[in-house]
Amino acid sequence: MNEIEKIIKENSLGLDTKKGRFGIEKESVRVKENGELATTPHPKIFGDKIKNLYITVDFSESQIEMITPIENSVEKAYDFLRNIHEIVITNLKNEYLWSQSVPPILPDEELIPIGKFPENKELEEYRKLLSLKYGRKKQLLSGVHFNFSFDNEFLIELYELSDKKITFKEFKNNIYLKISRNYFKYGWMIIYLLGASPVVHETYLEKCINKMKKFTEDTYYFEDLVSFRNGSCGYRNEKDFFVNYESVDKYVESLENLIEKDSISNAKEYYSPVRLKTKNPKDILKELKNNGIEYLEFRSIDLNPFSEIGIEKQDLEFLHLFILFLFLKDDESFDEKDYFTYLKNQEILANKGNSDEFRLICCKDKNVSPKEFSMVIIDEIEKHLKNIGAFTNKDDKTLQYQKNKILSNTLYSDLILKEVKQKGFIKFHMDKSKYFLYEMEKIPYTLKGFEDLELSTQILLKAAIKNGVKFEILDRDENFISLEKNGKIEYVKQATKTSLDSYVTMLIMENKVVTKKVLEKKGIIVPEGKNYFNIDEAKRDYRKYRGGIVIKPKSTNFGLGITIFKDKFSKEDYEKALEIAFKEDNSILIEKFVKGKEYRILIINDEVAGILHRVPANIKGDGIRSIKELVAKKNLDSLRGVGYKTPLEKIKLEDPEKLFLKGQGLTIEDIPKKDNVIYLRENSNISTGGDSLDYTDEILDIYKEIAVKASKAVGAKICGVDMMIEDINNSNPNENYSIIELNFNPAIHIHCYPYKGKNRNIGEKILSALQYL
Amino acid sequence: MNEIEKIIKENSLGLDTKKGRFGIEKESVRVKENGELATTPHPKIFGDKIKNLYITVDFSESQIEMITPIENSVEKAYDFLRNIHEIVITNLKNEYLWSQSVPPILPDEELIPIGKFPENKELEEYRKLLSLKYGRKKQLLSGVHFNFSFDNEFLIELYELSDKKITFKEFKNNIYLKISRNYFKYGWMIIYLLGASPVVHETYLEKCINKMKKFTEDTYYFEDLVSFRNGSCGYRNEKDFFVNYESVDKYVESLENLIEKDSISNAKEYYSPVRLKTKNPKDILKELKNNGIEYLEFRSIDLNPFSEIGIEKQDLEFLHLFILFLFLKDDESFDEKDYFTYLKNQEILANKGNSDEFRLICCKDKNVSPKEFSMVIIDEIEKHLKNIGAFTNKDDKTLQYQKNKILSNTLYSDLILKEVKQKGFIKFHMDKSKYFLYEMEKIPYTLKGFEDLELSTQILLKAAIKNGVKFEILDRDENFISLEKNGKIEYVKQATKTSLDSYVTMLIMENKVVTKKVLEKKGIIVPEGKNYFNIDEAKRDYRKYRGGIVIKPKSTNFGLGITIFKDKFSKEDYEKALEIAFKEDNSILIEKFVKGKEYRILIINDEVAGILHRVPANIKGDGIRSIKELVAKKNLDSLRGVGYKTPLEKIKLEDPEKLFLKGQGLTIEDIPKKDNVIYLRENSNISTGGDSLDYTDEILDIYKEIAVKASKAVGAKICGVDMMIEDINNSNPNENYSIIELNFNPAIHIHCYPYKGKNRNIGEKILSALQYL
Repeated sequence: MNEIEKIIKENSLGLDTKKGRFGIEKESVRVKENGELATTPHPKIFGDKIKNLYITVDFSESQIEMITPIENSVEKAYDFLRNIHEIVITNLKNEYLWSQSVPPILPDEELIPIGKFPENKELEEYRKLLSLKYGRKKQLLSGVHFNFSFDNEFLIELYELSDKKITFKEFKNNIYLKISRNYFKYGWMIIYLLGASPVVHETYLEKCINKMKKFTEDTYYFEDLVSFRNGSCGYRNEKDFFVNYESVDKYVESLENLIEKDSISNAKEYYSPVRLKTKNPKDILKELKNNGIEYLEFRSIDLNPFSEIGIEKQDLEFLHLFILFLFLKDDESFDEKDYFTYLKNQEILANKGNSDEFRLICCKDKNVSPKEFSMVIIDEIEKHLKNIGAFTNKDDKTLQYQKNKILSNTLYSDLILKEVKQKGFIKFHMDKSKYFLYEMEKIPYTLKGFEDLELSTQILLKAAIKNGVKFEILDRDENFISLEKNGKIEYVKQATKTSLDSYVTMLIMENKVVTKKVLEKKGIIVPEGKNYFNIDEAKRDYRKYRGGIVIKPKSTNFGLGITIFKDKFSKEDYEKALEIAFKEDNSILIEKFVKGKEYRILIINDEVAGILHRVPANIKGDGIRSIKELVAKKNLDSLRGVGYKTPLEKIKLEDPEKLFLKGQGLTIEDIPKKDNVIYLRENSNISTGGDSLDYTDEILDIYKEIAVKASKAVGAKICGVDMMIEDINNSNPNENYSIIELNFNPAIHIHCYPYKGKNRNIGEKILSALQYL
Repeated sequence: MNEIEKIIKENSLGLDTKKGRFGIEKESVRVKENGELATTPHPKIFGDKIKNLYITVDFSESQIEMITPIENSVEKAYDFLRNIHEIVITNLKNEYLWSQSVPPILPDEELIPIGKFPENKELEEYRKLLSLKYGRKKQLLSGVHFNFSFDNEFLIELYELSDKKITFKEFKNNIYLKISRNYFKYGWMIIYLLGASPVVHETYLEKCINKMKKFTEDTYYFEDLVSFRNGSCGYRNEKDFFVNYESVDKYVESLENLIEKDSISNAKEYYSPVRLKTKNPKDILKELKNNGIEYLEFRSIDLNPFSEIGIEKQDLEFLHLFILFLFLKDDESFDEKDYFTYLKNQEILANKGNSDEFRLICCKDKNVSPKEFSMVIIDEIEKHLKNIGAFTNKDDKTLQYQKNKILSNTLYSDLILKEVKQKGFIKFHMDKSKYFLYEMEKIPYTLKGFEDLELSTQILLKAAIKNGVKFEILDRDENFISLEKNGKIEYVKQATKTSLDSYVTMLIMENKVVTKKVLEKKGIIVPEGKNYFNIDEAKRDYRKYRGGIVIKPKSTNFGLGITIFKDKFSKEDYEKALEIAFKEDNSILIEKFVKGKEYRILIINDEVAGILHRVPANIKGDGIRSIKELVAKKNLDSLRGVGYKTPLEKIKLEDPEKLFLKGQGLTIEDIPKKDNVIYLRENSNISTGGDSLDYTDEILDIYKEIAVKASKAVGAKICGVDMMIEDINNSNPNENYSIIELNFNPAIHIHCYPYKGKNRNIGEKILSALQYL
């Protein structure tokens, strides 16, 4: 146990050591279905690429860059990347994301489009410079960058426990510099374990291809190649420059010298395996000197075509533990010679590390194979974590995952070579891309890492990511978030509670009596009715009511106390109903019974955003299957789940359903005739298996206008109008409709993922109403 | 029982007959303290006199006219009038309302100011015409007008039960015409029972005074005068014109003829005891023909100086029953001769009806005295009401009240003569005005007829009445109202929930965690703290907390689960407190304990509207009284009540107070030294007898600016900022303040009626924020 481990252990800071801030950046090129690079412009649906925080382009217009926000766990960063990835691939039209770090079928150099930034010529100029210096094909090499920093509170505590001879800034710098130096030394292991570019398409850079051997019809490779991207012909500077990692000042000085000598044009052009980063990304060298290192960027990670999103969570978890090892591991000498040795070591490992004969040159024991040494280091990681009292079951699994790769000879580079041999380079990678797209499209409604939020909020956040609107979860339990873009902040609760609506607008909608009064004043038809505070007065009015009426308490939950007389009714029944209603509240409503079907009209910003009609749980016969089987089949739909985490609920076959069938003379074993629709419930709630049907394009404009008018009457900008319509084809609204309720917190997911009909993209409509689009 | 009574009885419409729509208008002239007419302009505090629905001027600028909205009971109309009256008299500066129908000490004719309407010259011109024709002094005669119509549903039901040979409009017209004709015949009784102008000041019209006898030093009268205002020299046309009440058409024709002959300039100038009125007051004759009679206006009611507001509720209730009698009583012939007889009859009764020798000329039985005949009619009223099954205990009392006047010779005219004789005309009336003002000022916070509403809402409504903003109570239980002026409608719940605040602003304030995050982002100091979802994490952080902390559940009611450590605390106590907090919620907050005193800063529209500090229930010794006696004395304050219907609560002397005294070594029998302040409670809540102290002018601007900034940070327009300030004289806010909460429904009454300090007129500030002022 070394000094630092002792301090951590003695002060129970083990778990705090593992806290941190994590971020992932990932590049992937767009391809056509046949595996050719897509040279189309960056899709407009992702908005302005400069302003979208999450989805932008890298060097090439064809190269999508995905950037997660800073998260406080690897898992959250991974989940966020998965969300961005999902949003990107499901929104590409006839294009796919290429699942490999080395490029797909490339056109001639000059046909590869450079990222276009009409509003920022500097960005375009820099890309032109890169394309001249390195060639466009090389710049298309894509990978994953992993950003890490410790929890700042932990660093402060650690500093407080130190002798404090240096400033906190220096203390922090020293920690990150130590990790960086150790990454030079041990980083080969990340290339070894995560490297996944063992073969290159023939259309890649001729001068590289010329050095390589043919692997299949259209591919070339070096024998035992682990990671082409990290190798001699990969994504690297023209020659290896020395950069001093002893102190921030020396690091900055090294880079300033390189820039002065025109070896690189700016600090960003130094392609090192790990980069020192600052809080403010502008003028990074000055920032480093003034404010020190904020976080580290690890850059040697290849895209993994076997992974859904190009990187496995397990590998990222390992990377985190590996960084902790670099932090805890005692520091050794690191002079210019060491620097070049370590770089060379990484290069040769990338080029030919996948051979039993290969030996590392990095380390004292020069004859060690990467396989053996990896196993040693993995054990060391475990030991160090145990030293600080922070080794968990999960860590054990994380390490085991890497050990398995090594022991079973299933490094990604191994596996890819096998697959390419079997299926061909383009087919293997395209199949992977297509398969993961298919899988993701099956469950389009959830947002990874946010499944505890309501579906409506998940939908809004998805729209925010797609459009590059920054968000923060202020209170998870309450689905309370903030949105920010271009300096404009908005707070939103439960997706539809926003600054667009006034407080009193919501209070009006919450109160049925007041809502009716307000709507009536504007000439909107509401069920005729009267409010009673006293049962005797209500009883005396029996003579006034003809035809169907509804008697209900002013406020009611779950429909308690409501009686509906659809037609005639006796004085006795009337009085009984009054008594039932008055049991629930000291004020009741008697309303005319309204005929027709109910439609939920969602209004956003004075426009109809979607119209939905719900029908009770049902199945349609095929003449072969029993009701039970038909229900089971219908329940297979991935839109259906249990517990309100899906747009629809599975149909149950319990007592209520069985009873309802019995009423129709049926059992669940009966086989309905073809096309016969059998209802399993009287009520149409989604929560009891009901279907949601999109009617947005079916309802006549006149009713849409009335719904907008109703929403305007109460001053609402986001509002669910519940309208009864007797005949949706009747263009004369008189006597044909009635508004029964206005809802200030309308569900939006029902309009996005209906049982039948289009996704009405309500998330984006809300963002648009909030003026983010 | 006649035909109409049978129909009502058989169809159980008795109680519906008594429903109706009631309104009152009342004129009173303003006077100086010495009883001279105040010739100052109409007070500006009541806003634009044309736009104020409730408070305007009549003929003279000195003559305030108060107008109630239409109410559905006599009581409500009376209460509303009382409110207007109270608002008027408590807002007059050094002036009073004259409590008598005949004018106070008048200056010369030309010094009486005519109502000024710079924006409506037509109104001024008409007043000039009247002053030339009748003289300004006569136009100053003031009285009460009572507007009545039946409940329209009742009229419809009655019509449905008729043979329907005429239209509903004609049916309704006939009813109101019948009542009008009967009022000509029996209206003398209202003058007799309610008449209250038996003597006139010497400064009144010379040509009238000349006809009269001297009564006291400065007054004149006719012997047995009941109502000067209704008599031969009163408020009437130059001569009696015949107007036909047989049908609306004939009525309109009569008036058109009079206008054509220039006898009157418009329909309004026909000063009849009862007027036919229309829904739309413009072009009344045309309206009458097109849409019929909407309601009747009864105009023979004198101001009653014995009544708080110039009219007794009992007299108005009687007037209602009297109208019902006129409706139920069979109709008799009513030709031109009858018309003039009845008018003459009213005139002579007004002039000399208060004599035992006086005999009416109205009726078949010519020799009947008003006393005898009144008693007969009162019995008839009872009989008719009983016929329709609608005679109640309350009606019995109403009739009894009038019978008493008659039988005990205590007609108002009798009583006034006695008082004037004793105290003098000016002194008697001024004493009455001053006394009622004194009484009303004692309980300034409630609004009659609205005492069931929250004080905050009552205050807002008072401000609305004062400024002529129309309002409607949409939901009493919820204190939900609408306001309207100049076509602008606003909805308000609980006085402070308005359209000014957005829905999400309120949701931010409701959520402590989110509020803190939003304020912190703006650099506003909030108690440093951290949110925990897991007790182990919170336990681990023990080492981080030094000094005082507060541990509380994220959401809490009544302070459940909160532990305060003002200074040091042990690990055991800390963990115990965590357990207590986690029992209440699955998320807790640990905050730094903030020193200082708490101030409630009310922000309205980005400005500080009031600042309040509360102190626990206390009394100050006088060296003589015991604690018990001092509490009793303090509780006499009319601001203190029981059950939150007053701005402050009475101090209790129950177990908690006794225990708290015991802790100080005191009992309730102890006599504190002079100026010694003894506290009876630890907590400062108003609900347990605490005092509210206005600090609006004491707090430094810097803290006010911070409060405004906090309110702006969450986007609030109406917001109660709870700020802890350690030293209110320290102009450096750092470390000296902390905002502990923002409230979206701040109480406003505490700032209007504090224990010590100014009324901050929050009601008007809200109206102003809503852009009504």
